[in-house]
Amino acid sequence: MTLKPPSVSRRGLLTGGAAAGLGQVAAAAPATAATAADDTGTATVAFHGPRQAGVAQDPPAHAAFAAFTLAPGADRAALGRMMRLLTDDAARLTQGVPALGDTDATLAVLPARLTVTFGFGPGLYRAARLPSPVADLPKFSIDRLQSRWSGGDLLLQICADDPLTVAHTQRMMIKDARPFAAVRWVQQGFRRSPGVQSPEHTQRNVMGQLDGTANPRGGEIDPAVWNPDGSSTLVVRRVRAEMETWDKLSVTDKELAVGRRMESGAPLSGTLEHDRPDFAVLDETGLPKIPDFSHVTRARVEDPRLKILRRPYNYDGVPDASGVPDCGLIFAAYQRDIVEQFVPIQKRLAEKDLLNEWITPIGSAVFAVPPGCAEDGWIGEQVLA
Amino acid sequence: MTLKPPSVSRRGLLTGGAAAGLGQVAAAAPATAATAADDTGTATVAFHGPRQAGVAQDPPAHAAFAAFTLAPGADRAALGRMMRLLTDDAARLTQGVPALGDTDATLAVLPARLTVTFGFGPGLYRAARLPSPVADLPKFSIDRLQSRWSGGDLLLQICADDPLTVAHTQRMMIKDARPFAAVRWVQQGFRRSPGVQSPEHTQRNVMGQLDGTANPRGGEIDPAVWNPDGSSTLVVRRVRAEMETWDKLSVTDKELAVGRRMESGAPLSGTLEHDRPDFAVLDETGLPKIPDFSHVTRARVEDPRLKILRRPYNYDGVPDASGVPDCGLIFAAYQRDIVEQFVPIQKRLAEKDLLNEWITPIGSAVFAVPPGCAEDGWIGEQVLA
Ligand code: HEM
Ligand code: HEM
Repeated sequence: MTLKPPSVSRRGLLTGGAAAGLGQVAAAAPATAATAADDTGTATVAFHGPRQAGVAQDPPAHAAFAAFTLAPGADRAALGRMMRLLTDDAARLTQGVPALGDTDATLAVLPARLTVTFGFGPGLYRAARLPSPVADLPKFSIDRLQSRWSGGDLLLQICADDPLTVAHTQRMMIKDARPFAAVRWVQQGFRRSPGVQSPEHTQRNVMGQLDGTANPRGGEIDPAVWNPDGSSTLVVRRVRAEMETWDKLSVTDKELAVGRRMESGAPLSGTLEHDRPDFAVLDETGLPKIPDFSHVTRARVEDPRLKILRRPYNYDGVPDASGVPDCGLIFAAYQRDIVEQFVPIQKRLAEKDLLNEWITPIGSAVFAVPPGCAEDGWIGEQVLA
Repeated sequence: MTLKPPSVSRRGLLTGGAAAGLGQVAAAAPATAATAADDTGTATVAFHGPRQAGVAQDPPAHAAFAAFTLAPGADRAALGRMMRLLTDDAARLTQGVPALGDTDATLAVLPARLTVTFGFGPGLYRAARLPSPVADLPKFSIDRLQSRWSGGDLLLQICADDPLTVAHTQRMMIKDARPFAAVRWVQQGFRRSPGVQSPEHTQRNVMGQLDGTANPRGGEIDPAVWNPDGSSTLVVRRVRAEMETWDKLSVTDKELAVGRRMESGAPLSGTLEHDRPDFAVLDETGLPKIPDFSHVTRARVEDPRLKILRRPYNYDGVPDASGVPDCGLIFAAYQRDIVEQFVPIQKRLAEKDLLNEWITPIGSAVFAVPPGCAEDGWIGEQVLA
């Protein structure tokens, strides 16, 4: 294994002379659609293709969401240069190859299913003088948004099964974004470590719930998530879990708030996690077993084209002096269209959802997810070239 | 698997009636000295024994170090009550059994090699009107200590191979400590995820170095770490890595600063990681191959009774707006005696260590590590009973 970066110059890259170099990388680490996690450290997810990686794949254990504010005066040409650089970084790092000028090359060699997914906020389209496919969400009554967790012109969603890989990738890519953009916020999150649960099991979140049960899977993902051109959209909401009051609830009350059992994740109308919730089943007092205002009742979508793909990560910050925890979800959701799919769900939840008493949105951002790219292309080329 | 906490009341525990309950827990999950990580999630480390767990075991992937300031007026009797409660929490949670009154019992069932190690700061002994076996470190010229990362009367070192397990344990135990103590600081850190590297491989830190090569291992740990009564001591230093300038160094300069190779970890006098550094070997210009002021030259200790056991974790906070990273090591070191073992090393490093230019101590705390306890005992009983 050599730690020398391939001999492609940064200048060559910016002037279009780097195609050979990128091809070289891809050849060294053949792109496979799935990840055979034979070895957790060396497993890779293909970077190139018609759709970006990091959306349809099972979420790895660790993530950093890094949002940027573009430098004043960053125009379409500058954004193109930035995206060429960042695409090159991502193409290499995801395959376990150091970035150009990677100063800690030893940290690049265990990608652990690393993916880097790019999102463009409305501000990026403004800077490029182009119409934006995404707009800020309407205000919801439940929102207690803080600007330190909100907005952003550019997003990097960095996911891997190893936290050191995420940290290194974050650092290298922020360094390359610096001439073009300031860091607006970074949110770091986690799910279960590799091997702790078998991948077909639903993860638990910090509130102790099985989280992800009704998510589209397999063939259900396509109609919900991808536009014909390979693009998608992403909503990132930071949702604080009010653990102080949540902890005071009985298990039964927790289950009524969500509409599913804490231990098994089964709908209150059934017995197994993947039983179809039946909202018509009544209990002995004549009330629906799954309350009308439970989270799953309100969030439910039947039309496969209107579902969203949730890809949340837990966060756990530092508690305050009195011991009140600072934890919750980095709620990330992918869908073809935010207005058509995400907004109606969030609206119904904001109007009435028993769970609202124990969760508070404190950050919010929307991003267009441009299509993937070929080996000689770059993310955003359809928009910025 | 039942999620109901065993039927031992909190009151029973405090009045000494809980021994049966604890025995029950231990019987349900037989204590094994080593961890057969057949299943990363269900693997356990024994809690009870003459020495506390979480010291000699291979460090799991995630850690939270939580330090507390005792409430004014917390006396020896109160501290005894607190330690009985916290010992009971740790005895259960480490074996995958929910804590008494665990409000998110679903999160307790995958311990993933969870250990909880207790440390007592000088202030705890003051509160108990007892002589302290540890004293604050002398000031070192390199220190830029911040009070937000320094000191503490009580420490919980919570380690597990799963970040959700660490978060849950942290939350449950902080909750139980609350009547007795305020949270002073919490530092969360990571090493490679389980499965990313084989356990016999040395981990890399955020600076890209192999970190842990010369650590005592196997039979070398005993004489360095444990007093005859099963006690030890712990130093926790938060050491910032100055990545902005570190990144500007060539690989050769990085290697000279440490005295070992970046890629292999071999001493500059040799070729393999575990080659013995030979400080007498000269290069072609007549200078020692391992510089006299390199980190390993200055830190080197030959006497097995004077070595320290380093058990560091990486931290990676949120970069500032200009992209400057906030990362480094939560440097944790165990030794029999801080004054005899740790202080001379830190003194030599503070005086002259090439690495000093790229690392800055920003937090510091010292703790006595009381012996372990039997199933009917509690941590600290030798001191506080
Ligand atoms: C801290 C915040 C949240 C928590 C703890 C949470 C928790 C849950 C849980 C436990 C379930 C049931 C299991 C599952 O299918 O995954 C669920 C389902 C769901 N949630 Fe959330 N959720 C949160 C926020 C949101 C938000 C912000 C949205 C969208 C605006 C949302 C949309 C949904 C949807 C669409 C379902 C599936 C409903 C179905 O078809 O059965 N959730 N959530
Ligand atoms: C960010 C802070 C630090 C970094 C990045 C760092 C890094 C390293 C590295 C790369 C090695 C060589 C490989 C190994 O044996 O592990 C090493 C060795 C060592 N370090 Fe550090 N170190 C740091 C802080 C400290 C501190 C604060 C102490 C104690 C006061 C210390 C004591 C030692 C010792 C005793 C050795 C082994 C020397 C030998 O016997 O060969 N280090 N360190």
